[in-house]
Amino acid sequence: MNDLNEKIARILERVRQKRPLLHHITNFVVMNDTANVTLHVGALPVMAHAKEEVADMVSMAGALVLNPGTLTPQWVDSMIIAGRKANRLGIPIVLDPVGAGATPLRTESNLRLLEELEIAIVRGNSGEIGALTGLGGVVKGVESVVEVEDPIAVAKALAQKYELVVAITGARDIISDGERVMAVDNGHPMLKTITGTGCMATTMIAAFAAVEEDYLLAATGGLVSFGLAAEIAALQAKGPGSFKVALFDALYNLTAEQVVAGAKVCYLDK
Amino acid sequence: MNDLNEKIARILERVRQKRPLLHHITNFVVMNDTANVTLHVGALPVMAHAKEEVADMVSMAGALVLNPGTLTPQWVDSMIIAGRKANRLGIPIVLDPVGAGATPLRTESNLRLLEELEIAIVRGNSGEIGALTGLGGVVKGVESVVEVEDPIAVAKALAQKYELVVAITGARDIISDGERVMAVDNGHPMLKTITGTGCMATTMIAAFAAVEEDYLLAATGGLVSFGLAAEIAALQAKGPGSFKVALFDALYNLTAEQVVAGAKVCYLDK
Amino acid sequence: MNDLNEKIARILERVRQKRPLLHHITNFVVMNDTANVTLHVGALPVMAHAKEEVADMVSMAGALVLNPGTLTPQWVDSMIIAGRKANRLGIPIVLDPVGAGATPLRTESNLRLLEELEIAIVRGNSGEIGALTGLGGVVKGVESVVEVEDPIAVAKALAQKYELVVAITGARDIISDGERVMAVDNGHPMLKTITGTGCMATTMIAAFAAVEEDYLLAATGGLVSFGLAAEIAALQAKGPGSFKVALFDALYNLTAEQVVAGAKVCYLDK
Repeated sequence: MNDLNEKIARILERVRQKRPLLHHITNFVVMNDTANVTLHVGALPVMAHAKEEVADMVSMAGALVLNPGTLTPQWVDSMIIAGRKANRLGIPIVLDPVGAGATPLRTESNLRLLEELEIAIVRGNSGEIGALTGLGGVVKGVESVVEVEDPIAVAKALAQKYELVVAITGARDIISDGERVMAVDNGHPMLKTITGTGCMATTMIAAFAAVEEDYLLAATGGLVSFGLAAEIAALQAKGPGSFKVALFDALYNLTAEQVVAGAKVCYLDK
Repeated sequence: MNDLNEKIARILERVRQKRPLLHHITNFVVMNDTANVTLHVGALPVMAHAKEEVADMVSMAGALVLNPGTLTPQWVDSMIIAGRKANRLGIPIVLDPVGAGATPLRTESNLRLLEELEIAIVRGNSGEIGALTGLGGVVKGVESVVEVEDPIAVAKALAQKYELVVAITGARDIISDGERVMAVDNGHPMLKTITGTGCMATTMIAAFAAVEEDYLLAATGGLVSFGLAAEIAALQAKGPGSFKVALFDALYNLTAEQVVAGAKVCYLDK
Repeated sequence: MNDLNEKIARILERVRQKRPLLHHITNFVVMNDTANVTLHVGALPVMAHAKEEVADMVSMAGALVLNPGTLTPQWVDSMIIAGRKANRLGIPIVLDPVGAGATPLRTESNLRLLEELEIAIVRGNSGEIGALTGLGGVVKGVESVVEVEDPIAVAKALAQKYELVVAITGARDIISDGERVMAVDNGHPMLKTITGTGCMATTMIAAFAAVEEDYLLAATGGLVSFGLAAEIAALQAKGPGSFKVALFDALYNLTAEQVVAGAKVCYLDK
């Protein structure tokens, strides 16, 4: 386990050395926050959605984040264009299926992205991932209001179906590549009091995936780092406003030593 | 009056128990802030504007917020689709006519929403509400730079014309359903130093309207709670940046007891 | 030099007296932040991009900000419509060529704005301005990753070509109208840890240009004031989250006296 902590700390250091560009095609609600999270973890953000430029933009990226949280069919088309170019260039795509299960448009658009692109990692809450697998969970708006019964089985099933890594985030995060399963117990309940923390976690995963080819480890490392920063932030927070400020400070100041000492991560299946 | 304070406190508690979904079709400037305000008051936010999904999304909502602050005709079309579905299902619609009076597009689009939909509550500043009634007030951008002369008469007139509740916010908030008139004196001048506080007030009203059928009381209660949080926040603020952080903390931490003790609300006409 | 400081302080005071409306057609990432910066420096913000209303909206503005940071061709069309009206009315246009050089769409769109409109001031980072002149610099996403070799020559060249003021921001800001050259040494490295500080600097310049016809001085004054606020904020910051909060507080609280005492500005060529 300590070996895992060390590995994650080294990935965080690589993010800061390489400063990969994270091309986001994401929702309007979180654009500012996820651009800031990208900078704070040590990477470079760009938000670009015009079909005329997404293929050019993604070509210089270390990872592509697709987040249809305020989707229209036109934006999904741009995601497909960017995604195809990313696939040709071997650039990992991280999908955040915001609100899958809430409306047919959201469920179908996310399934279209999974079908037409080679996604590296999907991160969602329990209801969203449940909706994509058809194995339970209920989403109200963008919130998981009924959890899937067996998150490990659900994560494995979706991972196997599309040959990718699935991360279900919640009180305990479950990450699987279809065979191996990891659990992360970092994080804090205050994360649920502000909008966009799921999207921020996805950005963290993308930063790690840009510099680490084992996407199971990348997803896990991003979630550990984000969860640790949340734990540090919660110590100073008087409410969600000051929590968000402290979260951004903590992300920026997060050290490899803190990761080694604080990561709560283990294999459930190896 | 104390009875009023008690009633408002009980509505706040119901918001937190029921956690209604507030479907926003709103402007790009405030999406993040109003999503956070929704969470902090105890409700669930979703932002969705695609014409392909708005009818589905609003079906699970407790209230629908329409805020054409960065409107295009296409977005107004989506508002109409969502609004019609909300009307069929009896879900209250709260309209924030941002910048009505500043351009013909804004004035006409807001009047179109008022004509084609059954709006439950309209909240705007003095100039915006004046522009919708044709009874004075001047808007520069999205700011009321000349107030209407008689806000009570203006609120009543618009309320009677469209059979809804009108809230004119300012140093003293005036709320009317066309017969009854209430006044709220909670709030703080610092609210004018940050963008989107009008939009946040509208979101607060929507949270209350989702759980209280007397929309006059719902609008009043939302404004009391928001104003109170602003008063608490101002005590700690060193400027608008720290005020906003403290405002979000205060909204989240606002108790029923604080509402009972601090609400400054009365009937002007009963 | 002290005379310059005095002049800049007087412009800041005029912004607060006149409260000019700054019409932004800008990117989704920074809309909230630049609206807040507009308010904090003492002006009034409006964000409006519909081709149906931009000409009406800009008519009441003191300056027009064009920032194609999340551009589509449709948004650029709206910028042209608004810009033509601004030109007819003598309202200064400030252009922020976000990501010029990163993709052909960005480079071409910004050149189109420069060709078809009379821009008053362009503010960009070294790579962006380099891309517009063809004189070096490399942009990765929206970040300048290779600086131009001779920023003074580049600023002068672009300023002469389009008869406008060019501001290249960086550790030392260089501002030129094609003949005169000024340098600003205010600012702080923390500005690079949060997103949108370039866009915020552009908004500051627009506020100054709305009340000062010597656009070289206006651009310089906006950058001095923004840099000073950043210096003050950095004293209290524990990271980028608290830096941003303190930056907004400092902008709002910035006094003419602080500008006179703290401006680090000089002519390099007069």
